[in-house]
Amino acid sequence: MKKGKFITFEGCEGSGKSTQLSLFKNYLEENKIDYIFVREPGGTAISEKIRSLILDVNNKEMTSECEALLYASARAQLVKEKILPALEEGKLVFCDRFIDSSFAYQAYARGLGMDYVSSINSYAINNCMPDCTLFLNISPDEAFKRKGGADASDRLEQVGIEFHRKVFLGYTDLADKNPSRIEKINCLGTREQTHLNIINALKTRGVL
Amino acid sequence: MKKGKFITFEGCEGSGKSTQLSLFKNYLEENKIDYIFVREPGGTAISEKIRSLILDVNNKEMTSECEALLYASARAQLVKEKILPALEEGKLVFCDRFIDSSFAYQAYARGLGMDYVSSINSYAINNCMPDCTLFLNISPDEAFKRKGGADASDRLEQVGIEFHRKVFLGYTDLADKNPSRIEKINCLGTREQTHLNIINALKTRGVL
Repeated sequence: MKKGKFITFEGCEGSGKSTQLSLFKNYLEENKIDYIFVREPGGTAISEKIRSLILDVNNKEMTSECEALLYASARAQLVKEKILPALEEGKLVFCDRFIDSSFAYQAYARGLGMDYVSSINSYAINNCMPDCTLFLNISPDEAFKRKGGADASDRLEQVGIEFHRKVFLGYTDLADKNPSRIEKINCLGTREQTHLNIINALKTRGVL
Repeated sequence: MKKGKFITFEGCEGSGKSTQLSLFKNYLEENKIDYIFVREPGGTAISEKIRSLILDVNNKEMTSECEALLYASARAQLVKEKILPALEEGKLVFCDRFIDSSFAYQAYARGLGMDYVSSINSYAINNCMPDCTLFLNISPDEAFKRKGGADASDRLEQVGIEFHRKVFLGYTDLADKNPSRIEKINCLGTREQTHLNIINALKTRGVL
């Protein structure tokens, strides 16, 4: 019996997600809102070890199938160990990336297709879909321009702008197909404006 | 176009598989038979890192779903990076454990069921099923008695005899249901007799 609410944050590399999550956590603290916060891939001791494998720049020969299964394995551990127990206790659960990242990155950008990614993840998440997903709607071209280039220590950020354009198209397609779950957040203004857009979206949806 | 032959070895913990693989490799070398040999989980740099995660005794909280997906991710990498290219070159490929280990350990013993394990692995192996699987047919009770107990540094060997009995039942059920692929190897005699049983089985099937 799921009683809490499960909110996920999604966006391309450089979309300002980390900054927004930091502002959002401050908001939750200041307003004394009880919550737990996790990130993907990661969020448990085992999932963080899987994260290290996925993001290690030395693992360049990793196949797309292996990568997709590793993300699903980290997610399976996170859902069962952290997310489901917290939701059963009625908590607000926020997660930095979740299944839509696998859809956008693996299914769309890596070309594995939605059937493949849906199938391996259906077991991993055990029907634990987000109640609401906030997508930071900024294209990778705009995002990298604002950020000043990609991070050399991150395997995913090193794969080139074409890949990230496919991720963005994946996200916008997912948002268009799931409007009741996925909210596109306008983040072309200042970081404070984007922060307010997030708070307003969650208030409108009855989360805050 | 698969041209080579793909042979897998399966058995419970303590079944004498390592000893038999060593004798078998000596046979291949002495008879100048060209082959590649890989093990699961592992066999590639990335898959060996995944192996370390799976077998680490510190990862006791690992869920069955996470574990099954990790095995599948290591397998996906091994199939695409090593097994399929070798088979396409017409080589004999021998693998220490493969998909039947996931069936016996995850589907049967962990109770995840064949549908779950078949589904996540169908993507991982990309139709690359073994041409022949040799199952060392010795019960865990007999095997541990012969071995003198379980290995304290191995997470899987520490889970208790009941688990390994389920694994054994899984293997025998799989063998009974797939007699054209899976050969039960009598290994109740001496190691030399078991070795001969393996060689004879592979000769009968036209592999050697």
